[in-house]
Amino acid sequence: MMMPWVTFLGITRPLRVWKYVVRSGDTVIDATCGNGNDTLAMLRMVADDSASGCVYGFDIQQQALRNTSLLLDDSVTPEEKQMVKLYAICHSRMEDVVPVDKLARLVAFNLGYLPGGEKSIITRPETTILALKAAQRKLAIGGLISAIVYVGHPGGREEYAAIEDFASQLHADEWKCCKFQTLNRPAAPIVIFIFRK
Amino acid sequence: MMMPWVTFLGITRPLRVWKYVVRSGDTVIDATCGNGNDTLAMLRMVADDSASGCVYGFDIQQQALRNTSLLLDDSVTPEEKQMVKLYAICHSRMEDVVPVDKLARLVAFNLGYLPGGEKSIITRPETTILALKAAQRKLAIGGLISAIVYVGHPGGREEYAAIEDFASQLHADEWKCCKFQTLNRPAAPIVIFIFRK
Repeated sequence: MMMPWVTFLGITRPLRVWKYVVRSGDTVIDATCGNGNDTLAMLRMVADDSASGCVYGFDIQQQALRNTSLLLDDSVTPEEKQMVKLYAICHSRMEDVVPVDKLARLVAFNLGYLPGGEKSIITRPETTILALKAAQRKLAIGGLISAIVYVGHPGGREEYAAIEDFASQLHADEWKCCKFQTLNRPAAPIVIFIFRK
Repeated sequence: MMMPWVTFLGITRPLRVWKYVVRSGDTVIDATCGNGNDTLAMLRMVADDSASGCVYGFDIQQQALRNTSLLLDDSVTPEEKQMVKLYAICHSRMEDVVPVDKLARLVAFNLGYLPGGEKSIITRPETTILALKAAQRKLAIGGLISAIVYVGHPGGREEYAAIEDFASQLHADEWKCCKFQTLNRPAAPIVIFIFRK
């Protein structure tokens, strides 16, 4: 039997929380494609027969987008893959490509460096905050910004501090911001959820 | 329709988490009876026909134990109420009354002052930490210490800091300690879960 705490912690995994928010046919944004696992998970949530669902994926590293594209080739039909649009631009510029009239139900960030890639290429507080602000503007009412923040690599704590500061200042009438943190593993990733009411 | 973030936050309510851990027939401890709502909820989780379940309830205020007893009278059968044992002693002394061979699946704390009672009577860091240490010793493997910590009253932040410090130091091989916190409502209660692996 799985221990209760493992089950409980599974619930707090961002992907489980996304399922409360995202419906088929939605527009969603993967702000950090990485190796494409989240992009694929999001596609599976929005894909429907009418092909009205859409995943916008961003990563500044071409290697990440190649990995994401290959994962999609292996995992979904060509029709489903067409619902994913990948862009090799900084996520702070998401508004350059997502149409003005498309609001996202979910904007997901998985920060830090590309797993298996060059560890010196990391997300940085300045652009992460700009991207969070862009995500706010692109978010539908009832939508969610989800961020996994890593603090175990150089620069990670500074990025986390910037994000926590950003989320703490959002007006409580319009936004619900919360964090989930492991206390006795200081280097464990911290999960931040920003709900638009 | 309920907004997704409301649903999600419901999941993080301690009572929902207790349900992953507690089974009928278990021994559980309500370290802070207050007006008895948690005591009643815990009784409903452990009560079974064999009456092997047991709730030990503590509060230093007689008024709290009276309120708890009245709530139980109104809500459960006399047979069920007999599974609850109430003690007007400090929760740091829980080992004085819970038999040595009884290990608890859950020890729950709802800190601060008695709702509707005298606000100057509050839980204090020194005894709260002693009670948490007693709870650790009384906890079964796979069990949970759950604490709602209020930071909006004088002394609340100090108590929270002491508890966070305590939980942060527990060995990660044996304990999983996490917190759930609202970022943009600084006075919102903070939930701490301490799972024994």
